[in-house]
Amino acid sequence: MAEGKFNEIHGWAAMEPGMKVEPWSYTPRPLGDRDIEIKIEYSGICGSDIHINKNDWGNSEYPQISGHEIVGKVVAKGPRVKHFELGDTVGVGGMCYACRQDDCRPCKRGLEQHCPKCAYIIGGRYPDGVRTHGGFAEAVRVNEYYASKIPAAIDPAYAPPLMCAGLTVFAPMVNKGVKRGDRVGIVGIGGLGHLAIQFAAALGAEVVAISHSPSKREQCMELGVTQFVDTSNREEAEALRKSLDFLFVCSTAGAEKYNEFITWMACESQIVILGLPSEPLKVYPGELVFSGTSISGSQIGGLSMTRKTLEFAAKHNIRPMIERFPIAKINEAMEHVESGKVRYRAVLEL
Amino acid sequence: MAEGKFNEIHGWAAMEPGMKVEPWSYTPRPLGDRDIEIKIEYSGICGSDIHINKNDWGNSEYPQISGHEIVGKVVAKGPRVKHFELGDTVGVGGMCYACRQDDCRPCKRGLEQHCPKCAYIIGGRYPDGVRTHGGFAEAVRVNEYYASKIPAAIDPAYAPPLMCAGLTVFAPMVNKGVKRGDRVGIVGIGGLGHLAIQFAAALGAEVVAISHSPSKREQCMELGVTQFVDTSNREEAEALRKSLDFLFVCSTAGAEKYNEFITWMACESQIVILGLPSEPLKVYPGELVFSGTSISGSQIGGLSMTRKTLEFAAKHNIRPMIERFPIAKINEAMEHVESGKVRYRAVLEL
Repeated sequence: MAEGKFNEIHGWAAMEPGMKVEPWSYTPRPLGDRDIEIKIEYSGICGSDIHINKNDWGNSEYPQISGHEIVGKVVAKGPRVKHFELGDTVGVGGMCYACRQDDCRPCKRGLEQHCPKCAYIIGGRYPDGVRTHGGFAEAVRVNEYYASKIPAAIDPAYAPPLMCAGLTVFAPMVNKGVKRGDRVGIVGIGGLGHLAIQFAAALGAEVVAISHSPSKREQCMELGVTQFVDTSNREEAEALRKSLDFLFVCSTAGAEKYNEFITWMACESQIVILGLPSEPLKVYPGELVFSGTSISGSQIGGLSMTRKTLEFAAKHNIRPMIERFPIAKINEAMEHVESGKVRYRAVLEL
Repeated sequence: MAEGKFNEIHGWAAMEPGMKVEPWSYTPRPLGDRDIEIKIEYSGICGSDIHINKNDWGNSEYPQISGHEIVGKVVAKGPRVKHFELGDTVGVGGMCYACRQDDCRPCKRGLEQHCPKCAYIIGGRYPDGVRTHGGFAEAVRVNEYYASKIPAAIDPAYAPPLMCAGLTVFAPMVNKGVKRGDRVGIVGIGGLGHLAIQFAAALGAEVVAISHSPSKREQCMELGVTQFVDTSNREEAEALRKSLDFLFVCSTAGAEKYNEFITWMACESQIVILGLPSEPLKVYPGELVFSGTSISGSQIGGLSMTRKTLEFAAKHNIRPMIERFPIAKINEAMEHVESGKVRYRAVLEL
């Protein structure tokens, strides 16, 4: 059996429900035949890391090392690894296991995130019961299938947000068919939204940024929007009427907003929920029937889509806006994310 | 100007809000260059006819001749009619006007039912303000664009339900991509549902009929389903879990059912509302995000889709189940429809 470099992996774990993390280490699972060991260089912070640390979803276990936007270098590999060499710069996102069996329809369709046996890299368990740990650590081991090469055109420091946020916005654009000339609205200009603008623009869409913060207008124009709609201006919002082919909701906009969103939609158009409102949506079915609008949701994407996201981002110079924090300041960085102050994704440097 | 055969069209009109119709006549608009005059032979009754007669939607005008599943023979035509000869058997559905301008996106996309200027053939008005009247009458005049040839393989008596109900179920199957091997659920086995089963089966789908009336099991098997699920049997309903690629909701199933429907859906699948619940849907957004399921609605379809529906039905021997009524029994027929007794569509013979 191949040996890894890290017999004990030091990281920063939540020891109990809450934001705060502290140094803690774990013994990694043995390096399997198709596993790679990655020395982590950059690790993004996503809202889900904080939710899991705080046990907001009620199923967290402790100690917990979060972090699922992981970028680093391959420092060890199992004897049957096919796709990576030592020294390669790779990224790992939210998943580290799926069954990948022929009779699993999600896996067959490349939608591993829907595999009933899928293990997330944070707060998950492998089929053998071993808990997973993520990227707020010096290293991580994963089966090579769950790692993707970071294209040379992408500065590795900017790659972490592509592994989750970028994938989350790009996958539904591809799956739902955003194409050249479509009018695509983006609600909520933040970690997801500022990437959604760039991906949609690169797909050739006319992008409309929709925000109640007029201060974001200039930045959105720089990111590639053709129009900025300030919803605090009633007239601007009303002018959206029946004009959008797609609306990607990147905020956790209140459920009550959705009936207004529908009024902005052209016939047979699509609203995609990417940010979770906590309350049930209350949607008038007649609005859906008479307009033909659909409402759906989407979460991350499969592994082939992850690689497609990276290639597309490299080809079209899509670059997340990040704030960098040395790993020693991880607690400060998480507070910055939690309070919504970060513009627009936080990346830890290890 | 060409002359029609009917200078006064006798029909059966609602004279005030309510189910009851009585003989009444109107002077048709002059026969335009591209208009055809149709002597009506068969006229289907749809729920919307009754809603409009009863002013359920609050915008009815009286006297009102309803009927928007119209089949008959061309008996007169304007000098520039291109597609029809006298004697042709043709059908007319819900629409008789759309702007069809290049700058109208719905019209350009063949979705005339979403044209802002679209006139429905019942309860509508032409752009010049003239009210429209439908198929509970001896004749009707329409621009030829809104008429479709009934293929020779279709018995004209069975054609009316294809003009609205058939189109309503087939259009979203095509637009949303139902294909061979997909598992397609149909909720509500009635006027729409019994056609949805046939269309989905002809598209090569595995069709699952879902009903709380076990008495419909045998009939559904004859119509081509691979499975019948009796929702009054808890175990049968639960076995649907995560198994459907599409669900066409042909009943006016209560809004509260939709969270159960979502549990039946495979990942990244589609629920399509065709029957209108009167209450808002209350949908948990997390269910949509984590499953990737979409909820949309659909109403009728454009004219090219209407012709596609007829051709597809002819090719695949799709045949509505109808009960025939002589026009003299129109009031009895409408009560039959209203009470849900008809199996499954009522057709008036003129």
